[in-house]
Amino acid sequence: MAAPVNPPRGMRDFLPAGKARREQALGIMKGVYRAHGFDEIETPVVEDYARLHAGLGGDNEKLSFSILKRGIRPEALAAAAESGDVEALADLGLRFDLTVPLTRFYASHRAELPPVFRSIQIAPVWRAERPQKGRYRQFVQADIDVIGEPGLLAEIELITATSQALAELGLQGCVIRVNDRRILFGVLEHCGFASETHDRALITIDKLDKIGAQGVVEELREIDGEAADRIRTFLETVEVLVADGVPLTRQGVAGSLPGIAAGEAPAGIENLVALGEALEGVLPEGVELRFDPTLVRGMGYYTGTIFEVAHPGSGSSVGGGGRYDGMVGRFLGQDVPAVGFSIGFERVVDLIELSEQAGPDAVALVFDSDVVFRDLLELKRALVARGHRVRLEKRQKNMKALLARVAGEGFTRFANVRAGMRDADELEFRALGE
Amino acid sequence: MAAPVNPPRGMRDFLPAGKARREQALGIMKGVYRAHGFDEIETPVVEDYARLHAGLGGDNEKLSFSILKRGIRPEALAAAAESGDVEALADLGLRFDLTVPLTRFYASHRAELPPVFRSIQIAPVWRAERPQKGRYRQFVQADIDVIGEPGLLAEIELITATSQALAELGLQGCVIRVNDRRILFGVLEHCGFASETHDRALITIDKLDKIGAQGVVEELREIDGEAADRIRTFLETVEVLVADGVPLTRQGVAGSLPGIAAGEAPAGIENLVALGEALEGVLPEGVELRFDPTLVRGMGYYTGTIFEVAHPGSGSSVGGGGRYDGMVGRFLGQDVPAVGFSIGFERVVDLIELSEQAGPDAVALVFDSDVVFRDLLELKRALVARGHRVRLEKRQKNMKALLARVAGEGFTRFANVRAGMRDADELEFRALGE
Repeated sequence: MAAPVNPPRGMRDFLPAGKARREQALGIMKGVYRAHGFDEIETPVVEDYARLHAGLGGDNEKLSFSILKRGIRPEALAAAAESGDVEALADLGLRFDLTVPLTRFYASHRAELPPVFRSIQIAPVWRAERPQKGRYRQFVQADIDVIGEPGLLAEIELITATSQALAELGLQGCVIRVNDRRILFGVLEHCGFASETHDRALITIDKLDKIGAQGVVEELREIDGEAADRIRTFLETVEVLVADGVPLTRQGVAGSLPGIAAGEAPAGIENLVALGEALEGVLPEGVELRFDPTLVRGMGYYTGTIFEVAHPGSGSSVGGGGRYDGMVGRFLGQDVPAVGFSIGFERVVDLIELSEQAGPDAVALVFDSDVVFRDLLELKRALVARGHRVRLEKRQKNMKALLARVAGEGFTRFANVRAGMRDADELEFRALGE
Repeated sequence: MAAPVNPPRGMRDFLPAGKARREQALGIMKGVYRAHGFDEIETPVVEDYARLHAGLGGDNEKLSFSILKRGIRPEALAAAAESGDVEALADLGLRFDLTVPLTRFYASHRAELPPVFRSIQIAPVWRAERPQKGRYRQFVQADIDVIGEPGLLAEIELITATSQALAELGLQGCVIRVNDRRILFGVLEHCGFASETHDRALITIDKLDKIGAQGVVEELREIDGEAADRIRTFLETVEVLVADGVPLTRQGVAGSLPGIAAGEAPAGIENLVALGEALEGVLPEGVELRFDPTLVRGMGYYTGTIFEVAHPGSGSSVGGGGRYDGMVGRFLGQDVPAVGFSIGFERVVDLIELSEQAGPDAVALVFDSDVVFRDLLELKRALVARGHRVRLEKRQKNMKALLARVAGEGFTRFANVRAGMRDADELEFRALGE
């Protein structure tokens, strides 16, 4: 036995059954997104080191894998050792999300893209996290984004497309919680938090489902004791409301926010009410839309609507996204509105049940050792031409084991091939795995 | 304008039209391979640094991108600077081919795989080559391999599956040149080259199409003058024969190798004759099989049959492969037979013409600004449910430009949506792009 043969730490190999399952899920998602008018694009898996560390990726930047420059000279190596800056030896890195590459892509190709660009990216990303159950260092994200549309139509198309994708994957009971960053900032302002403390306060409020209203208020005290006391009633009230589910209606949204009129909160409220009205009754069965005034979403770049999908089968969210109007502009030097919705592909793939028998009828030909290859090939060719998937299997002593294995590999029928057989119509197929 | 927004050097973004073309080609190839009984697998894009530099990748090892260890301590950096060994700072690397990962995968999962394992891998690889026209630093390889089958059936299934894939991609006029490494070694032995010079001699013979028989002989003189003189007639003869095309028949193969009986050459000859007999008349129209006794294939790990696909539209080969029986065993500590056939996906995608209109009927809905989102959504939902791909477009002053753009994006029909329209049957569709 030679060197260890496992994949690198925290990464996975996919065997045929697992890979087929993933491909089937990908096919369903891409089909729905394309039907909804989105277009698939692709970017390289690596981006410039500087771009991956420009502050757009939040904590993920620290988790990125860096790629060594080629042909590093001894002087450069010595200089890096001197300064202790090992990252100076890297010029590229593996992407940690699909949003940073998308904004770079859009800035590069804007002139070739429609004014409202609806993109699909379903592709792997890499993060050097401490490996643990359900967390991988290479995993697939499934993002759709609308760039160039300032109005609600962007959110609407993203939510309807994603809802249908989840429904066609067979995920029942999804709840999409929605909020607007402007409401959050309005609440903070209303309670008296100074604007320079808002980002820090949001990080704390984001922990509501983990540490409860009481815990959040205690942490907020460290920022501003009086403001923390003022936000207590709001947090305790919405904690109860959210648990029961607040509908995305005027009554639901405005009723959960009595007296909150600071800053841009009213614009955020109107935005969500209009979203709720547009989506009423058009989402697939089994997908619910709810207002959650405490939803924060981690990334600092969100500016308006934010949303997150919960599923009863998963402890954490299976997807989320929001409006990030300021981000694309950082590359272009002008503001470009953008909204994105990302599905956590790995979580979704674990939750769904897919039919084993998608695709063509799969048959096995079990051939005797005296069958000549030409005849065998001719039989295989004829069956493939008829639309079958065909596996050739040499006859074995233990036929029961052979047939059980082939059935386990997804083949449904088999036929024996004897010397001299050349006509596919002569084959007598029998069911496998029964 | 901020930082440059191009993809990293030598790598590419794919816009919607290009990406759709690639996906369509991938779908065709995967469909054919699956029909032929192969199963898709996936491995991480990175492998352990040591594995990528174990001598199995030939010159490609030098071109691999290396990934910095995380959390390198100052002492380790200083030690690397001291020794000048910058690669000591890397623990992973991007794969430069799909064969090294496949052998690692097989060694890891053998117990879960069928005794004869037919794998599909269509995935990107990375090489830090000097970028030039048609050469990229990230590119897709499309490999099928048969592991565990010592007999010709492996070669036969690979060649028939690949031929059909090329034919269904619409590549007409492909020529598959075939040889057997044992014949090459036999010729060298026959001419008197010492066995330790064989690998070096093959590297020279591999240049026959570039520098001609005369040039090859001159270079071989540096190894062994007398042997080089003895191989001259063989090279000059086959150079002419190969240009005319040698059929893969007993007459074609044995007739091109008069008196060559050294070493394992006879076994190689019988192998090719049997292959030709099995494949006679079963390859798709437009795919030709030819014997080429000077075909070498670059990689050192080939042990038997080797093949390469040429296409009149491409200066270099569009695919190739061969038997590499010794390689998987290096991980397992026991011999495992293996054969692979790789299609150069990037070259093939450039050569083929694909129909623009694969997929569902794509329609654009051009809506007035006073149409309410709910109605628009309902129309879109109804059309998607009928199997259409639907793009929403806001009415513009310059409708001609809008319709031309949408036609260019692959949509075939459009309809105007006026305020109050709710029923998809009310829509009047007109053809686009005519």
